[in-house]
Formats: sequence, structure tokens, C-alpha cells
Amino acid sequence: MPQARMKHFGWGREGEGLSAEEEAFVLARAEARFGTKLQASATAPVLDEIKLHEPRVKAPASLPFCTSDHYDRAAHTYGKGYQDLARALTRDYADAPDVVAYPRNESEVAAVLDWAGGADATVTPYGGGSSVCGGVSPFRKNHKGAVTIDLREMGKVREVDKTSRAALIEGGTYGPALEAQLKPHGVTLRHFPQSFEYSTLGGWIATRGGGHFATLYTHIDEFVESLRTVTPRGTLESRRLPGSGAGPSPDRMMIGSEGILGVITQAWMRLQDRPKFRDGGAVQFKDFFTAARAVRAISQAGLYPSNCRILDPAEAYNTGAADGSVAIMVLAFESADHDVGPWMKRARECCADHGGVPEASGAEAHLAGAAGVWRNAFIRMPYAMEKLILHGVINDTFETSITWDRFEKFHDAIKTATENAIHEATGRKGQVTCRFTHIYPDGPAPYFTFHALGEPDKLGTQWLAIKSAALDAVIANGGTVTHHHAVGRDHRPWYDRQRPPLFADALRAAKKALDPQGLLNPGVLIDP
Amino acid sequence: MPQARMKHFGWGREGEGLSAEEEAFVLARAEARFGTKLQASATAPVLDEIKLHEPRVKAPASLPFCTSDHYDRAAHTYGKGYQDLARALTRDYADAPDVVAYPRNESEVAAVLDWAGGADATVTPYGGGSSVCGGVSPFRKNHKGAVTIDLREMGKVREVDKTSRAALIEGGTYGPALEAQLKPHGVTLRHFPQSFEYSTLGGWIATRGGGHFATLYTHIDEFVESLRTVTPRGTLESRRLPGSGAGPSPDRMMIGSEGILGVITQAWMRLQDRPKFRDGGAVQFKDFFTAARAVRAISQAGLYPSNCRILDPAEAYNTGAADGSVAIMVLAFESADHDVGPWMKRARECCADHGGVPEASGAEAHLAGAAGVWRNAFIRMPYAMEKLILHGVINDTFETSITWDRFEKFHDAIKTATENAIHEATGRKGQVTCRFTHIYPDGPAPYFTFHALGEPDKLGTQWLAIKSAALDAVIANGGTVTHHHAVGRDHRPWYDRQRPPLFADALRAAKKALDPQGLLNPGVLIDP
Repeated sequence: MPQARMKHFGWGREGEGLSAEEEAFVLARAEARFGTKLQASATAPVLDEIKLHEPRVKAPASLPFCTSDHYDRAAHTYGKGYQDLARALTRDYADAPDVVAYPRNESEVAAVLDWAGGADATVTPYGGGSSVCGGVSPFRKNHKGAVTIDLREMGKVREVDKTSRAALIEGGTYGPALEAQLKPHGVTLRHFPQSFEYSTLGGWIATRGGGHFATLYTHIDEFVESLRTVTPRGTLESRRLPGSGAGPSPDRMMIGSEGILGVITQAWMRLQDRPKFRDGGAVQFKDFFTAARAVRAISQAGLYPSNCRILDPAEAYNTGAADGSVAIMVLAFESADHDVGPWMKRARECCADHGGVPEASGAEAHLAGAAGVWRNAFIRMPYAMEKLILHGVINDTFETSITWDRFEKFHDAIKTATENAIHEATGRKGQVTCRFTHIYPDGPAPYFTFHALGEPDKLGTQWLAIKSAALDAVIANGGTVTHHHAVGRDHRPWYDRQRPPLFADALRAAKKALDPQGLLNPGVLIDP
Repeated sequence: MPQARMKHFGWGREGEGLSAEEEAFVLARAEARFGTKLQASATAPVLDEIKLHEPRVKAPASLPFCTSDHYDRAAHTYGKGYQDLARALTRDYADAPDVVAYPRNESEVAAVLDWAGGADATVTPYGGGSSVCGGVSPFRKNHKGAVTIDLREMGKVREVDKTSRAALIEGGTYGPALEAQLKPHGVTLRHFPQSFEYSTLGGWIATRGGGHFATLYTHIDEFVESLRTVTPRGTLESRRLPGSGAGPSPDRMMIGSEGILGVITQAWMRLQDRPKFRDGGAVQFKDFFTAARAVRAISQAGLYPSNCRILDPAEAYNTGAADGSVAIMVLAFESADHDVGPWMKRARECCADHGGVPEASGAEAHLAGAAGVWRNAFIRMPYAMEKLILHGVINDTFETSITWDRFEKFHDAIKTATENAIHEATGRKGQVTCRFTHIYPDGPAPYFTFHALGEPDKLGTQWLAIKSAALDAVIANGGTVTHHHAVGRDHRPWYDRQRPPLFADALRAAKKALDPQGLLNPGVLIDP
């Protein structure tokens, strides 16, 4: 059954969104938060009212998988970040690509790169388009045109090696299609970012996406066994190896390259057997820092839970997981091989050492209680954002990491800076909440959500003022501009402050070696 | 108490080596292997008979930590590989550095780089000098002179962060000094390569060294939290973070760069608490492939043993761990946090599924029985090599990795190719044995040892013929030229075949950005 096409504005496919009940819940929560009735102040742009410039370059007939149709160009103008939605609401589609290519194989990817080089068009690789940091918006700069390469026709699992538990998967494979093709083999990638339904393997790798596992396999990086990347100068393929010490890793140069070095066309990925044993549940703590201390104990114990995330009291309340008086830990172990009881038992002891009080426990606990409520809210979150913005609400997230020794001071500095920025930008109190998405023996990856009530015609600038203050604080206090959302164009000014200048020189030189014309995603990560 | 100085030839410090008893054992084993009495055919070069060319460059008086003394130049001409020993036996010291610098801090490292650039001298960073692949031999190429920077004066643990379990450690810190400085804090790096006593943190990082842990933390890579590297264009410092998704990792460019991009002066390293709980022991299997199947089961079970190494029957016999009729697994779990009984129990079940029969078990089992015998032989191995070569014996190791689906065919192809090459090169049957040093869910890291009886005046060329055939087979059958010994100059021809050509272009460009004159280790990893 053919699926509905992707929305040109907002999350997911046409026809998808919040139910009336969910929408009412989300709006009511926002009204309670800001202490005022919300008014609908904008409407999502319909296709017909979107004006696009005439295509400045046109694909030749020899590339029949390319199009300059209105829908395709409009739908590839923006990613899914708040800035994207805000700009689309102003009906500003000046950055629309001239051509969208849907190559069906690697040689068609190479053909597009060849043609774009001759036509002096920039090239934006595009997976599911779920970037929340300006990573998929075309950027023409001083080139003649802009081409987007959408990899969705390259969505096959080509080979499964059950012995080594690995599979060769095409870069344009969406999350659900990837898991569906692996399932008959009894294996799974188990990489479930929030964007799982609408993001692709190639996108996960290009952005160093973070997934399901809260420990050990936090980023997609660890699952990459080898890569094939098409660059303007040809194809770069690494050797399929479980581990190597032969020079700097070629894969680690491509992982996180955000489309500036080439188009990731396929990868051998490390898989898991499907879990058969599970244990988990939610644990309540008196406050966030106390919960964080329990997380630190678990992360340094060598237990490696699949889930060990904490929500601060406000975030637990916002997602319906608790009443606002306690912090919540969502804890889970899973295994395809053995009963995880001893692991869970020891993790619970770590929690008890910090006053943690368990809710329900058991194999289905990850779907029940506070853990289940939070999980559902997490998955539906992107749909809420596109509704709230129509009512003047500014809400967004940013995520980082920091070592344990600096965490508490860091948390307070970021939270205060963001709260102050909200007040300054909007003249009204907002809310900043925090959770951990991933944890390491040496520190957590805190994930902040902020809520502000803006003015309908100033949402973009108000958002930018808040986000800038937040990221200023993140960088000044020693964090990273992104733990797993990527840099894109939105985070670039802060990435520039974080990234060692000499590394920028080295990366720029490497890019020039692979993309001499500077066609690929100009302005992402580095300037040419 | 001041330590004896490092030997100018062979392993370790002056006065160290095999005991008479160990030497007799090693020689008797070799005689039994080759079925002939061994004759001493060479003597180690004494300092006085080593002739060095006049220094072609001289350090200025402003760099008083530099020297051109005879001992320092002779002792920095070679690493500890077989090729190094063989060349030194011919009294060929043509590649001796002109100057050896012992900088005491980062600004002195920078000063040496500045001076070397002006003097047109190449620069070889030098840690403990234990490279077994030609990684520390100076290479002048078409430059005027050659300078070696020995980091041994930069050996301090500068800061310990117990909360995040991390420490800031200088690049020239030797293994024992590193652990001794961490011990009072109750923490440990637990990176114990065979070269532990005579290798440094900076060397481990520059070569992607492999250490203690057979799973998870197989390479030093995983322990690196951040790095400082002095390049000819300035200092590159990455941010101290538990995890990041901000672009390609700057650290991953430096890790494995083998001195071609800069000198690693300090690193924040992730640590472990000292283990309190241990369980382990040796397990016997009927043959190597059966043992390998048990290893695969354990590696894919998510148990993460600290040790899970297997020796084939011949290797188990050679090291005194078994009688030659069985393969041996050395299995161990350790934890600072919890009893590892449940982990060990499940790993034993995996062994039993493949007919594994346990020897002794328990907390001290890693020091007893077959496991302990093997461990001792492993540590003393380098001393044996320098004795055996004086009797015409060629013995060396090479290590690789391969996915499980290809392992058995791979193993047989490599073993056969190496055995045939021994026969062809020496006219006599030799021996090739195999063990696993590290394991991954998607494949093992097999480590091969070969023994041949050569002709005293042909040892270097015979060694090269054997090693070349072995590495030809490794590369042709899909393996990596090195899993943790590094590339150096010895492995370069095969690395060139393994490394994607476009990655070589990118790396070359990155090097040029950081080292425009091409001073650092020319010819290692890439040509300028």
C-alpha cells in the first residue's frame, strides 16, 4: 500500500498529526503554563500560497529521476526545526532548491554530483528531512543554483550477515523500513531516535544521531562497521572490519560530516539480536540532582542499562509522567541472551542509595506507568510543536554534554540564562526543563526544553534571542553545542567557538580534497 | 631511586632481560621446534662499535634539553620490531637522528618544532620507543637533518577528577608511572598493552594501542576524553566532553595519526575504579575454531568480559599453558562495583555449549593455572625475541581483525600463506600460531605468531619475505593490516592497499594544513 506523501510543512506524512484530544491537552497545558488563553494567530502555509522562484538550473533529460515540481521544491526547503516552521509561516521560500533528485542507485548519485558540478549548483544531501538545526535547507551562496538529493529511493537492506550480526543497508532507508527488513532475520539495529519514523540511516550517520541506548551505543557511530560515500571526486569505501588500528579511522571522518564531504550511500551496520529478556520501570527521586547522582552511580558501575534517563520534576509533569513534585528515572535493561535480573537489582540498589523509590517493575514496564506516559509524549512531541507555533508559542530543545564534576553548576547556569533570555525576549516568564538522554561514566548528556509565549510576527527573532543566550551559556560553561542533533546552520556560530581552529583548517583542507568546487552543503560546519 | 637508562639495543632498561633459566627454556623450545641445535651466530652491538654520521644539524644553545650525544642518538635509531633488531645486528645506524630533544613542557615541544622547521630537519615523536612496526625510526628523506622528540620528561598526571573519573595526563607518561600516580586516588586507566612498562600515553594514543580489556574498551581510543596536540602551526586542543555529536571528532583525527599531524602533549583520559570483584579462569576446548565459536557467543551476549582470549593448541603449548592437544580460553570478569558471578556463570554456559571444560576458577585465577602461565610468558616475550635473533631465529607477530562470517577461511588462508612463505624463505618448516587478543560482537582480532630458523646474514630479508606473504594474505582476504600495533613504515605498503585512496587525499590535505613543511614523520601513513 503506497504511503501518503510527506507533508510540505510540519512533521510526518499528509493526514498525520495530533488527535483532537491530544491537541486539547497540549494547548491546555500551554495555557496553564503561561496563565493566559491562547489564540490561533497563524495558519500553516498551503501549497498553493507558496511562491517559488523560477528554477535557476534545470536537470537534463538524462537524469529523469530529477524534478523541479512545485511540491517537491516546497517540501525540501525546510527541515523540522522551530526556525524552519517560523520562516515557513512567513511564507518565505526563497531558499527552495531548484531541483530535487531522487536517485535510485549510487551511479545516479554520482551522475547528479557530476551534473551539479558542471551546472555550478550546490548540493544538499537529504534523508528524511527531520533536521532540527537547519541541516537540510539548501544554501546557494554564490553558486548558480541549488540541488537537493533525496535518498528515499535507496531504501533497501541489501545483505544480512547473521553470523557477524551485521547488515549492508542503503543510506536512504527510513527507520521503520529498516527494521521491517531486518525483522525476518531475527535481528535489529535498535537505533530509535525521536525522529525514527522520518529519518534515514544515512542521515543518522551524517549527523551522529543518538538513539535508543542510553549507555554504550549512544550514537550511531558505534554501529558503523564500514561506509560507502560518493564524493564529487569519486567513491570512498572503507573496509568491513570489527575493529582496526590502521591510522585515523576513515569512517570517523565521514561520521558527523553533515553532507559536506559526500553522500553516504550505504553502510555495513552492526546489529543486535531481538531482545527476549527485559526488566525496568520508573524510579522517583526527590529532585533532579539527586536523580543525577543515582545516574552517575549506575553509569560508573559498568551495568550498561539500555535506558537510564531522568526527567526533572517540571518535565515529568509536562509529559504527564508525574505530578511535578518529583524527578523521574526511566530505567531499563534488555538482553537477547540472559535474564537481566542481577543487573536490574544492582541498578535499583544504586537508586536506593540516593533515596530512589521504584514504581512498577517488570518486562512491560517500559510501556507502562510514568515510563510509558513519557515515552508516548516523547514520540508525539514533534506534532505538538507545529500546533503550538500557530498559537504564538515558542518551544524548542537543545542538548549538550558535560563532565560530572561540572554538571550541577552547568545545569543551573544554562537554565538561568535561558529563563532570563525568555523574559527579556518576550517580556513574560517562560519555562525551562531538563532531562538526560544519554549517560556516560564521565558525564551526562543533558537535554533542555524551553517554552515561551511570543508575538506572532516576531517568533523567529524571539526564538533566536532565546536560543542564542542558551547556547552562549552552553559554550561558556564548557559544554558541546550538540550531543546528537548535529550542527547544521543553526548551531554554526557556537560550533565555531567550540571547534579547535586548527581542526577547522584540517577539515577545510580535507573537504577541498574531496569536493574541490565546494558544492556540498556550503556553510555547514566550515566555510570554504 | 633513579632507574637504569633504556637499552640502546633490545627491550627494557640496561641490566634487564631473561634469567638464565628463562633463556634455557626459550632456547630449548626453539631447538625442539626446529629439530636442531641452535648456535649463537651474532652478538648485540655494544655502544662503542656503533658508528654514527656527524650530526647534520645542531640544536642551538637556547634548547639546552637537546643533545647529540652518542648514546642518545644510537638509542633512538630503532624501535623494537624484528626488522629493527635485524638491522641493528648488521651495525647499520645510518638512520640515527642528528639531535634528540627531551622537552620538559609544551612550549619546549613547540620550540623544537620551530627550530626544526627553520633548520629543515624532520621530526619523529618518540614515546617509549616500543614500536614494532618501524614507527619511531627517523626518516630524513630529502630534508637536511632528523630530530627525535622524546617525551619522557613530560610524565606527570596533572589533575585527577574523581567525580567524572578522569585525569589530565602528560603524553610522555610511561605505563607504570601513570598507574603509580593514579593509585593514591583509587583509580586506574587499566590500559595494559604488552609494552606497558616501556610505552607512553602519547604513544598509545598516536598508534591506537590495544590494551587490557578484551571487549568494549579494546583500543585506547575509547578512553580519550580530550587531547592537546602541538603541531608546527600551533596547538590544537579539543574540549573535554563525555560525548559529542558536533561534526567529525577532532580527537579521532589525532588518534592513530602516528606522529604525522603533531605531538600529543596531554590528554584527559577516562579512568576506572580499581576492581574489587573478580572471577575468571581458563577453559579448555578441543580445537581453536570450537573455542572461537564460544568466543563469538560470549561476545554477542552483551556480557563484556575484561578478558576473553583464546590460544590455539600450539600457542598454548609454546607459552606453557597447555600440552598442545587443546585450545585454551582465558576468561575473566572484573568490577569495582558488584559481584560478577552472574556474568561469569552465563559466560561459562556459553563455553559449555561448545564443549568447553573449565580449569580452576576464582578471584585469583587470572594469576594461576594456564591463564597465569600464559600471562607471564606474554609479558616476557619481548626479551625472548632479542635472545633468539642472536641464534638465527626469526620470530615475529602480526595482528588483524575480521568479521565472524569470514574468520575460519581467513585464519586458514593466513596460516597457510605464512607457513609456505617460511618454507620458501628458509628452506625449512617453521611454525605459525594464532590467538585472539580482542573480540567484538561482529568479529575477532586474531594475532599470529611465526617462528622460522633463518640464516644469520639474511635475517632481515628472510623476515621481510615471510611478513610480506603474511600481510599479502591478510589484505587479500579482507583483514586490516593492523588491529593495534599501528602502521609505521613496516606496514605501509599494505596499509596503502587497505586505505581508501580518497581518504589518503583527505588525510594528506589535513596534514598539509597542520604541517606545511612536511616535517613530521615523513612517509608514515602517507607520502606528502
